[in-house]
Amino acid sequence: MASPTQFDPPSGTRDFLAPELQVREAAFAAIRRVFDRYGFEPLQTPAFERLDVLTGKYGDEGDKLIFKILRRGEHEASGEADLALRYDLTVPLARVAAAYGNRLPTPYKRYAIAPVWRADRPGRGRFREFYQCDLDVVGSASPLADAETVCAVGDALAELGVAGHRFLVNSRKALRGLLEAYGVPDELGGPVLITLDKLDKLAPDEVIAELAGRGLAPGVAKALVDDLTADDAVERMRRELAASEAGRDGLAEVDQLLELAGGQLGAERLTFTPSLVRGLDYYTGVIFEVTAPGVPGSIASGGRYDGLVGGMGGSDVPATGGSIGVERIIPLLPTSGREARGLDVAVTVMGEEQAAGAFRMAGALRAAGLRTAAYLGGSGKLGRQLKWANDQSAAYALIYGPDEQATGEVTVRDMASGEQTRVPEAELVAFLVSKLLARLSRS
Amino acid sequence: MASPTQFDPPSGTRDFLAPELQVREAAFAAIRRVFDRYGFEPLQTPAFERLDVLTGKYGDEGDKLIFKILRRGEHEASGEADLALRYDLTVPLARVAAAYGNRLPTPYKRYAIAPVWRADRPGRGRFREFYQCDLDVVGSASPLADAETVCAVGDALAELGVAGHRFLVNSRKALRGLLEAYGVPDELGGPVLITLDKLDKLAPDEVIAELAGRGLAPGVAKALVDDLTADDAVERMRRELAASEAGRDGLAEVDQLLELAGGQLGAERLTFTPSLVRGLDYYTGVIFEVTAPGVPGSIASGGRYDGLVGGMGGSDVPATGGSIGVERIIPLLPTSGREARGLDVAVTVMGEEQAAGAFRMAGALRAAGLRTAAYLGGSGKLGRQLKWANDQSAAYALIYGPDEQATGEVTVRDMASGEQTRVPEAELVAFLVSKLLARLSRS
Repeated sequence: MASPTQFDPPSGTRDFLAPELQVREAAFAAIRRVFDRYGFEPLQTPAFERLDVLTGKYGDEGDKLIFKILRRGEHEASGEADLALRYDLTVPLARVAAAYGNRLPTPYKRYAIAPVWRADRPGRGRFREFYQCDLDVVGSASPLADAETVCAVGDALAELGVAGHRFLVNSRKALRGLLEAYGVPDELGGPVLITLDKLDKLAPDEVIAELAGRGLAPGVAKALVDDLTADDAVERMRRELAASEAGRDGLAEVDQLLELAGGQLGAERLTFTPSLVRGLDYYTGVIFEVTAPGVPGSIASGGRYDGLVGGMGGSDVPATGGSIGVERIIPLLPTSGREARGLDVAVTVMGEEQAAGAFRMAGALRAAGLRTAAYLGGSGKLGRQLKWANDQSAAYALIYGPDEQATGEVTVRDMASGEQTRVPEAELVAFLVSKLLARLSRS
Repeated sequence: MASPTQFDPPSGTRDFLAPELQVREAAFAAIRRVFDRYGFEPLQTPAFERLDVLTGKYGDEGDKLIFKILRRGEHEASGEADLALRYDLTVPLARVAAAYGNRLPTPYKRYAIAPVWRADRPGRGRFREFYQCDLDVVGSASPLADAETVCAVGDALAELGVAGHRFLVNSRKALRGLLEAYGVPDELGGPVLITLDKLDKLAPDEVIAELAGRGLAPGVAKALVDDLTADDAVERMRRELAASEAGRDGLAEVDQLLELAGGQLGAERLTFTPSLVRGLDYYTGVIFEVTAPGVPGSIASGGRYDGLVGGMGGSDVPATGGSIGVERIIPLLPTSGREARGLDVAVTVMGEEQAAGAFRMAGALRAAGLRTAAYLGGSGKLGRQLKWANDQSAAYALIYGPDEQATGEVTVRDMASGEQTRVPEAELVAFLVSKLLARLSRS
C-alpha cells in the first residue's frame, strides 16, 4: 500500500469535490450575473501563452514565479521553455486587445473568472493554482467607465453577501500632487509612495523612520505622516492637493468617482483615502481597494491603467478595471446550504429479476426531471440499500421486490419519516412529483 | 506596428470571445443538467499533475504528447520537468479515487467537463488545448452502472439536440470469444483486433490483407471478415460466440445493456456491433461508441474498465464510464440564437452635465435586473451614440439631454421601430420593465 501523500494533488493545488466545488461555482455564477447586467461579456484565453508574451511583465520577482513549459519532441533535450502558464488575466486581455483590435466592441467590456498559476511558496490560503476574477473596460477614458467598474465590483460583493465592505478611493494624480505639495524630490517619489503604502500596517513612527531612511528630509517625513494620520487627514490633504495642478486633477477624479459610484452603492461605502497607493505601478488615474471587517488586507481592488494595453504593442488605449479576490472571499461566505444536494429518489434494486423494472422506473423519474439514481452496489439487503439512500440524502426511496413486482406496484418510502406508501407503477411519477412539489412549497 | 500573428494565442489554442464562449457554456450547462439528474457529481482537479503520475499511462506515443513543466528556481537550469499538464480526465480521477478512498461516496459517480492539453500537431479540428467531458462510476460492478452511463450519454446528446445518433455496443469478452471461435492464436489477438477495428474505414479485402500480413492464416482472415461484414453478421456472430464461455458472457453483457438502455433510449438507438473494438486497451467489459449521420468517426464512447483505477495504486475497484466528444459536437449545434445577447437598455450620455443623471438611471435599471450600460465613448453626438446602442443590439436607448434634464424626464427610444416616448424619470423603471416583459411574452 502506497503512502497517502503519493496521491495528493501537486503542492499548492487542490482537488475540489462536489460540495466545495458547488460553493465556488455558485459564487462565480453570482458574480457573472452582476457583470452581465452591466453589459460586460466573458472572455476565455488559453491556459498557457508564449513565454515571451509573459516575461518582463511582472518584474523580476514575478518572472521567477512563472511556470514554464518545456519544449517538446527533439527540442525537449534543450531544457528550454517556449510556453508558460497564465500568470494573471490582464496580460492575456492586453494580448487579445492587440490581436483583435477594432473587431472587438468599443469599448471592450470584458470579465474573466479563471485559474492562474504562480510558483509561489504554498502556504495558508496561498496557492499555486488559484482563481482570479477580473473585469475591465478597454478603450474608454470616460469617468463613467471607472464608476461602472467600481459599482459592478460593489454589486458583486453585495450579491455574494460580503457584509460591511468599504471602498478606499484615491488617484495616482492625487499622489503626484501630494509629493509636489510636500516638496518630495522626483527621484524619491516612488520609494516614498511604497513606504506610505505601509501606513495601514506600520506605526506612524516606523513609517517616518523608513521615509527618512530612504533619504526624505526628516521634517518633511514627519509633516507628511502627521497630516496623513491626523483625525482631519482628508481635510488637510484636500487643502494641500488644491495647491498643484496634479493635485487638483486627482481630487476632481476622486470626487467624480465618489459622486457617481457613491450615488449607487451608498456614499458611506466609499472613502477618499489619500494614503492609498496600491502596489502595481501601472495605474495612471483613480485607484481603489475594498476592505471588509475582520478580513486582513483587501478583498478587491482596481483602478485606471491607461498605458498598459498599449504597452503590449497594440495601439494606445485607455483602460480601467477591477479584480475581486475570490479565493479570499469564498472561505468567508455563509456556510448554510453548503451540503451537496441530495437525490430526489433513490431506487433500490432487490434482485436480478427486479433490476430492469427498477431501472425503468428510475428512467421515468429522470425524464420527469427528478434527480434519481439506482442502487449500483452488490448487496441485496434492504437495510444496506436504505443506508445508501440515506447517505445520498435522498428524499424518497423506492422499494421494488418480488411482492411489488407481482402486483405492478412499488413501495415509496419517505426517508425522513420512514412512512411507506404502496403505489401502482403507472401512478409513480405523478405521485412523487406532487410529493416533491409539496415539499418545495413548504420550504 | 507588430505583425498580427505576434498576438495570436499559442499554436493549437484558441481565444473564445463572448458569442462562441456562450455557445460552449450553454452546451456544457445542458450536459451538466443531465448528468446531475442521474446523481453524478462534479469533480475539479488541478490543471497539472506530478509528472510521474502521468508518464507511462498513455503509451509511448501518448507520453511524447505530454506538456511538461520545467522545474523552478535553482532547479530551472537542470532543464528537467517535475509537473505536467493534464492529458485526460481519467488519470486524475484514478488519483482522486486512490487519494480519497472511502471518503468518497460509494459508488463514486462523478463527471468533469474541463480542458486537457496534448502537444499534438495542430490541424483542422485538432487542438492542443481542448475540452473533454467524462462521466464515470467508480466502485460498482453492476450492469446498471454501465446502463446508467449509456443512458446519461444518450440523454445528454438528446439535450444538446444531436439528431439521429446511434450507439454501437460490444463487449471485450465477446471479442475474446470471437478470437476463440475463429482459433486466432493468443499472441495475434491484439494485432487482429486492432486491424478489425478498421472495418468501418477500409474495404473488407484490405482488412483481410492486413490480417494476413499480421500472420493470421488467410483462410481464417477471410472467414472472419466475411462473417463480420455479411448482411446477417450479427446472427452469425451470435452463433459463433455461443460456442465459448467468454463469448456467452460477452453476449449476456451486451444483451443486458441493450435491454436496460434500449428500454429508455429506444431499442432502435442501440446496435450490437461485433466488430467494434475501441482503441484503448484498458476496457474489460461492455464498450460503446456513438455515431451521428454526417459526422465521421464517433461523437462519444466509453465502456467498463475494471483494472484501471486499481492500477494507479489504490485498492482494486471496478469502474465504468463514458466520454462525450464535446469539441466535435459543438460545431454541429444549431446556429440559431448564437448572437451574443444584446443590452436591454443603452444609456446615452449627451454632456458632462447629464453624466451623473444618466449613470443614476443606468443604476436604477440594473437594480431592476435590466442589462444596462451607459455610453463610455468620447463623442457627444447623438447619432454616434445611437450607432453604439445599435452595435450593442440594445432593445431601448435612453436619451437624456438638457431638455429632458430640465423637466425631469427622459426620452426612451425603441431601437427597432425608432419610436420615441418621453417618460418622467420617476416612472422610467416601471415603463421599461413593462415594455420588456411585453416583448418577452411576444417572443
